[in-house]
Amino acid sequence: MTAGKIVAVMLTACVALILSHPATLAQATDRHAVHRFANVVDLTHALDEYTPYIPVPGLTFPFKKTPIATVVKNGVAANRWEIHEHLGTQIDAPIHFFEGALSLDQLPVASLVVPLAVIDISARVASHPDTSVTVADIEAWERQHGRIPERAAVMMRSGWDSRIDDARAFVNADAGGVMHFPGFSPEAASFLARSRQAAGIGVDTLSLDRGDDATYATHKAWLGTGNWGAELVANLQHVPPVGATVFVGATKVKGATGGPVRLIAVW
Amino acid sequence: MTAGKIVAVMLTACVALILSHPATLAQATDRHAVHRFANVVDLTHALDEYTPYIPVPGLTFPFKKTPIATVVKNGVAANRWEIHEHLGTQIDAPIHFFEGALSLDQLPVASLVVPLAVIDISARVASHPDTSVTVADIEAWERQHGRIPERAAVMMRSGWDSRIDDARAFVNADAGGVMHFPGFSPEAASFLARSRQAAGIGVDTLSLDRGDDATYATHKAWLGTGNWGAELVANLQHVPPVGATVFVGATKVKGATGGPVRLIAVW
Repeated sequence: MTAGKIVAVMLTACVALILSHPATLAQATDRHAVHRFANVVDLTHALDEYTPYIPVPGLTFPFKKTPIATVVKNGVAANRWEIHEHLGTQIDAPIHFFEGALSLDQLPVASLVVPLAVIDISARVASHPDTSVTVADIEAWERQHGRIPERAAVMMRSGWDSRIDDARAFVNADAGGVMHFPGFSPEAASFLARSRQAAGIGVDTLSLDRGDDATYATHKAWLGTGNWGAELVANLQHVPPVGATVFVGATKVKGATGGPVRLIAVW
Repeated sequence: MTAGKIVAVMLTACVALILSHPATLAQATDRHAVHRFANVVDLTHALDEYTPYIPVPGLTFPFKKTPIATVVKNGVAANRWEIHEHLGTQIDAPIHFFEGALSLDQLPVASLVVPLAVIDISARVASHPDTSVTVADIEAWERQHGRIPERAAVMMRSGWDSRIDDARAFVNADAGGVMHFPGFSPEAASFLARSRQAAGIGVDTLSLDRGDDATYATHKAWLGTGNWGAELVANLQHVPPVGATVFVGATKVKGATGGPVRLIAVW
């Protein structure tokens, strides 16, 4: 190859490289460049007194909002809330099951802006709610979509959020009070923490655990690794299996075991 | 210049271009590319019973958290909260001052992931807390940093958050009960809505208004445009004047006039 040809080839390569990265060029030419996302999807259910929750007699209760001021009477409107830390689209901190572990305000902020991976088991759940995301599901997902990104939020899409307006169907308790809905298996949770360094897991149901596991095995396996878990996640059918970033807007209450969370996916 | 020298210069240029954009190159070779931000800054104060708030006798009250279950007694820990909608790092919805206007759950999700612009008036505030971000401040900022991006969150950095651990100094009421801290002027708020299409404004103090304005003129001027306002914003000294994106993790409570918000800046 002559020097002239080498120059030509390199010129072509350089131009191709430049043309393939318009955003980079725009940034280079505009010192006030701002980042815009083409897609912004809300993964959060709106919370009200009808929002389903795990019924624990004497402990849990529905959300309650009471006016403390109104525009007509006070010139300004405001409400007080009675709420517990595990209501609505919510996040669990490790201290929920482990004394002395991280509380909600102590979660590293870098763990709250992470890549999102969505594992869809809705076809299986439709006929069999007593099922879990397993290690085999994760491996099957990876064969299709590539390795789960490090420090990702891995979420189960079970199709359960279609029941959100029917708290009874959402809790799905049988005559004996045993709940039936899917979750993560404890083994899958451990695998995601240890072998994929996941930052968080999420479910579109009421619990990281399957509804029929009263031992909270998945909560313990997962939160024991020092990471967060999200429940009652919405709209996972509207985000790609991989490629989005999720913002985890965890309420920052000192010492909290969990709390409402605003989840927003962007890509 | 010889062909050899041209090749050398182009090689150097290409290598420099490649080395300056490692993330871009990594994305080009990975079909499951995920977005990572080099900087993630938490703009949220942790909420507890000592967090300052605007005292309105008979209406407002400090945050309260009470255990409803503990690991020792119940195998799981959880708390109940008593809270009103304008406590801690918080967001106001238009319905806070206007009946029938947007409530917290109705804010468009696209308005919750926006470019951040920070206007620093801390030098002036240090000697004179009864001051505001004015239209002149915005114009001066634009001469230095370029036009405020459309649909941005524009935040006042007054230095006030250095007082966060002293509620009395934060509220800064005089003997007559008049509070003294900076805010946005009503004219600046209107200008940002009408001439810059801002999506939100934020302050590191207790109110969008100056503390000594009991008429809530800025709240009304701003919220009347249908946009959100954030208060008690933290750490604005740790983000650039422009170039970051702010994620506005507003609690999603149906019909709420406001609520705790998790604010995270990334760039």
